[in-house]
Amino acid sequence: MDFNIIRTGRAVLNVKDLERSKAFYVDALGFIETEADDRHVYLRGLEEHNHHSLLLKKAEEPSVEVIGYKVYDDTDLERLDRLFSQKGLEIRWMERGTQHAVGRTLRVQDVSGLPLEFYAEMETVERMLQRYDLYKGARVQRIDHFNCMVRDVEKAYEFYTKELGFACSEYTAAEDEKIWAAWLHRKPSVHDVAFMNGNGPRLHHIGYWLSDQMSLIHACDVLAAMGYTENIERGPGRHGLSNAFFLYLRDPDGHRIELYNGDYLTSDPDFKPVRWDINDPRRQTFWGHAAPDSWFNEASAVQNVLAPEKLMETGEPTLKQRKPTFVI
Amino acid sequence: MDFNIIRTGRAVLNVKDLERSKAFYVDALGFIETEADDRHVYLRGLEEHNHHSLLLKKAEEPSVEVIGYKVYDDTDLERLDRLFSQKGLEIRWMERGTQHAVGRTLRVQDVSGLPLEFYAEMETVERMLQRYDLYKGARVQRIDHFNCMVRDVEKAYEFYTKELGFACSEYTAAEDEKIWAAWLHRKPSVHDVAFMNGNGPRLHHIGYWLSDQMSLIHACDVLAAMGYTENIERGPGRHGLSNAFFLYLRDPDGHRIELYNGDYLTSDPDFKPVRWDINDPRRQTFWGHAAPDSWFNEASAVQNVLAPEKLMETGEPTLKQRKPTFVI
Amino acid sequence: MDFNIIRTGRAVLNVKDLERSKAFYVDALGFIETEADDRHVYLRGLEEHNHHSLLLKKAEEPSVEVIGYKVYDDTDLERLDRLFSQKGLEIRWMERGTQHAVGRTLRVQDVSGLPLEFYAEMETVERMLQRYDLYKGARVQRIDHFNCMVRDVEKAYEFYTKELGFACSEYTAAEDEKIWAAWLHRKPSVHDVAFMNGNGPRLHHIGYWLSDQMSLIHACDVLAAMGYTENIERGPGRHGLSNAFFLYLRDPDGHRIELYNGDYLTSDPDFKPVRWDINDPRRQTFWGHAAPDSWFNEASAVQNVLAPEKLMETGEPTLKQRKPTFVI
Amino acid sequence: MDFNIIRTGRAVLNVKDLERSKAFYVDALGFIETEADDRHVYLRGLEEHNHHSLLLKKAEEPSVEVIGYKVYDDTDLERLDRLFSQKGLEIRWMERGTQHAVGRTLRVQDVSGLPLEFYAEMETVERMLQRYDLYKGARVQRIDHFNCMVRDVEKAYEFYTKELGFACSEYTAAEDEKIWAAWLHRKPSVHDVAFMNGNGPRLHHIGYWLSDQMSLIHACDVLAAMGYTENIERGPGRHGLSNAFFLYLRDPDGHRIELYNGDYLTSDPDFKPVRWDINDPRRQTFWGHAAPDSWFNEASAVQNVLAPEKLMETGEPTLKQRKPTFVI
Repeated sequence: MDFNIIRTGRAVLNVKDLERSKAFYVDALGFIETEADDRHVYLRGLEEHNHHSLLLKKAEEPSVEVIGYKVYDDTDLERLDRLFSQKGLEIRWMERGTQHAVGRTLRVQDVSGLPLEFYAEMETVERMLQRYDLYKGARVQRIDHFNCMVRDVEKAYEFYTKELGFACSEYTAAEDEKIWAAWLHRKPSVHDVAFMNGNGPRLHHIGYWLSDQMSLIHACDVLAAMGYTENIERGPGRHGLSNAFFLYLRDPDGHRIELYNGDYLTSDPDFKPVRWDINDPRRQTFWGHAAPDSWFNEASAVQNVLAPEKLMETGEPTLKQRKPTFVI
Repeated sequence: MDFNIIRTGRAVLNVKDLERSKAFYVDALGFIETEADDRHVYLRGLEEHNHHSLLLKKAEEPSVEVIGYKVYDDTDLERLDRLFSQKGLEIRWMERGTQHAVGRTLRVQDVSGLPLEFYAEMETVERMLQRYDLYKGARVQRIDHFNCMVRDVEKAYEFYTKELGFACSEYTAAEDEKIWAAWLHRKPSVHDVAFMNGNGPRLHHIGYWLSDQMSLIHACDVLAAMGYTENIERGPGRHGLSNAFFLYLRDPDGHRIELYNGDYLTSDPDFKPVRWDINDPRRQTFWGHAAPDSWFNEASAVQNVLAPEKLMETGEPTLKQRKPTFVI
Repeated sequence: MDFNIIRTGRAVLNVKDLERSKAFYVDALGFIETEADDRHVYLRGLEEHNHHSLLLKKAEEPSVEVIGYKVYDDTDLERLDRLFSQKGLEIRWMERGTQHAVGRTLRVQDVSGLPLEFYAEMETVERMLQRYDLYKGARVQRIDHFNCMVRDVEKAYEFYTKELGFACSEYTAAEDEKIWAAWLHRKPSVHDVAFMNGNGPRLHHIGYWLSDQMSLIHACDVLAAMGYTENIERGPGRHGLSNAFFLYLRDPDGHRIELYNGDYLTSDPDFKPVRWDINDPRRQTFWGHAAPDSWFNEASAVQNVLAPEKLMETGEPTLKQRKPTFVI
Repeated sequence: MDFNIIRTGRAVLNVKDLERSKAFYVDALGFIETEADDRHVYLRGLEEHNHHSLLLKKAEEPSVEVIGYKVYDDTDLERLDRLFSQKGLEIRWMERGTQHAVGRTLRVQDVSGLPLEFYAEMETVERMLQRYDLYKGARVQRIDHFNCMVRDVEKAYEFYTKELGFACSEYTAAEDEKIWAAWLHRKPSVHDVAFMNGNGPRLHHIGYWLSDQMSLIHACDVLAAMGYTENIERGPGRHGLSNAFFLYLRDPDGHRIELYNGDYLTSDPDFKPVRWDINDPRRQTFWGHAAPDSWFNEASAVQNVLAPEKLMETGEPTLKQRKPTFVI
């Protein structure tokens, strides 16, 4: 690779009611609102120095416009353009000024049909890490990863590890050692993106990192006190795979957010990806709770980067087993 | 009342394999083993200065021999004897020396058929509260309460509040304002004993108090790491009723233990019992998780105080609704 | 005793600037403001169902008007009147209606010269225990205890244990086994009041109970972020004596507040008071930090219950050793 | 740079009594002992998959043999050799097999006189991250950073940022904008190494990362319960600079260990180093506690990489101000 993808950057979500979304993200979860207008709300975590990691846009129907990665500098974008063009992927350039607070951006529909974007620049704002007086709810610290449902996990795995420079931290093996799910990273955490075998392309969830477990427990209490009990879909619990202490929430439009803590450092080239068998009880929710069906079946539709008004059609996954006996 | 019941004291449980039970209670949950022989294991929490709050006895089949309350002094036992005799309840005296580490004891089959005992004296041992080097697992601090399934909650409620001097902190109202469940206390916490409408008399669980929420989360991790995933029955979660942060475990014989934190002070006579409607979603598990059926259906059989070899027969509850839509 | 003092009830403090005090207590520490006017601010903790446990009154100079205990019912007040009169103590009755939200009250200058009040009634308000969306700062839960500097600890100890029915949980022994400090309780916690040998009568601090240690750590962060660094006088740390996880703060008028967690249950008559030698390093701050001199020398002046405009004169303590080598 | 230093790797410390050190590191702090013999103890944190991050060697006197960094692969060592030789620094090769569990190693006395080593390979062992049953004491997770006292911080800063590829996250400016202290990283955390103006070259401390704040508080309790009160030198507290929640300990030989939590992600090239004025109260210990003099004056002597029996001579620092009014 002659380019450098640094990390998961931001997601752009379409939502139906911005005020309703702000109540959820800002009042209950503790996101910082960087700015907002009639059509947009820009949100960031407490330690984030970039303008936003979550952009909510008002729309008729919920969907995912794009999931974005930050690269080292603008020359990386040119090199990514070459790679994508060579691979026959559809791309779209958005020049500086097109998107508020974000520099020149390259969008692409990836090999799984997911809408990606890459950018090097985003406006810098005040980091609120030590503004403890502003901490509330889940005390969301920073964006951590995307989790995507795709029809062919192996195809995505090959592209991200061999062409985009991602490393694999953990994976789930299904029939004939086929990869059923994979956790891939650029920054040295467990993942920047994970792929799961399923009806896709769809965005399963956006993971946000919390500094500690008590913030996640407190988030449950605050959500319940504010009437968001039905938005708590799964957890709190511990994943065997990745060691994540997790809580899965559904935002008011059904987009899934994971609150997340428990990661480990994956900087070393001699760290061997951890293999889990799909039906091995050790990879189940570590404490033994079953995940609800909605967690397997429901995910957010994604847009076409060339024609945002069109949602990507989804299709059946390649691996037959859709759901393990025990589930991550 | 001319007697003074201080608090929940101890439980005596029959278990089939003492080593198996010690591994669970001592190694995983962090109980202190005061002493043990071939037929008995005496356990206590980290802050307890009395010899034990849990006595495990080796037996052919699991059951509850007795649940015990501590009274202020021995004269209280005489007064309780008079009350029980006057009420026509079966009693049994066990003189000092009969039970190891425990003074003179009065046993009785209460109005619900539960085997109770009362004692004023128990040997004092070293309190381990500040032996932080011995803390492990759930870091169990002290016994807190019993939860019992009985056929007629109102009958139990009347007897405990009017004859035994318990106060009610919270209760659940069912059809025609009948009490479906009640939380009763002598020490100024939410409860020393709770009664639930169900097939009884049976012991639903023994509640142990933890000093903080992180000990409960760590307990989940330790239990899972030691292979006790299937012993985690319900939680972690928050009860709306009582505000308990809870984890329900099944010990190797199926006896249910609650790890518990989140209580409040109930010392005041002007504190009005909190009323919850059985089908009011506000009283459900605060974060919205359903309880498994086992939590409603399964409980420990209890012995006859006069004939310990005989288990008490159970019968149908008086209230028709056996299980709320949302469950505490 | 033919009366029943239930627990520490409230403190009435004079402060110079109510807005400045509200910023500290409400915004930083998370007290709930029940109500306020130009001359008064009424504050309570998150679990308190009584109208307030801290009343701030606007005044020219900071001082303590009174520290109050709640009794079981109004007949207890008559019985306390008889005791105090018989002992030759100055008393003052304040009829219902004299004090906002509080019933009939008996005030007395106690044997150490401290201004006490006793009341059975206080208005009931909504308990905020499950309004987790309102939790902030230290998440103060409830009032726990008073700590007073008095000239003659043994005299106070004798009066409170023999005449008022308090039990001793722990004490510090100085020269000739004289009691240098004592922790006394009515509710079954470590204390409702503690007395320390020192220049008195003065109020050393009011202790507020927190539900967990992380709330105390978060309070440090919030206080620092809001510019209250100089108000953090001592801690966080652990007392060997009482096992308290503590933080001592000075409010804007210099009144000292302890945030407190780590208590244990003291309900049992067979619990022997824990004796600590004043110079025994085991009783020091458990983690080995020295307390600042201000913690020993400074405390709040108290008023005369008959002539509130006059502060009680203070005098030298009876025991020579003013400060242990290691300090609680 | 044509080489890739990944992260802080390990430290090799000389200690006088291995059993005494094991009691401290393993029993109290919760390090995992990978292996040990009469002359060596190899320790690692709970998430570490490499053989050790701390090697204790039995010696007559305490000192630091070397602090080590892990590089991407062996070719990086050759390139580092060229750089160091070109800069006229003393180097020493240790071929594979010379050091137990470690591959080929390059040692060098750096521009400040600190003994460094670089290696790409270390034996892989079982990661204990999910062996929660083995968690104890501080639950040490992984090595995080070194903090070194050097005579000329700017010289070190220039060499590490311009020649070795470290990035600066935060720094302290003294007289004439001279750098008084700097926090430098390779992995995207606040630091892999920090330099402070002082009598040097000496190792000030080794920082170990904890997963959460409660583990640090529990470590204080465990250390105190085991009699290590005097080994707690400073904290718990919060650094303004770096946001670290910290505890500084002195091991039985006086080597200083920092337990550490509260880091943030520093992956982005547009993250500007945070500047703090040495006398700016905002950079002080965030909660306002003064550091003890020992923290400024005492540090571990370091060895000469060519002649390990000789300790490096120390000298006066270049900046006059030795100690800020408020201290990180």
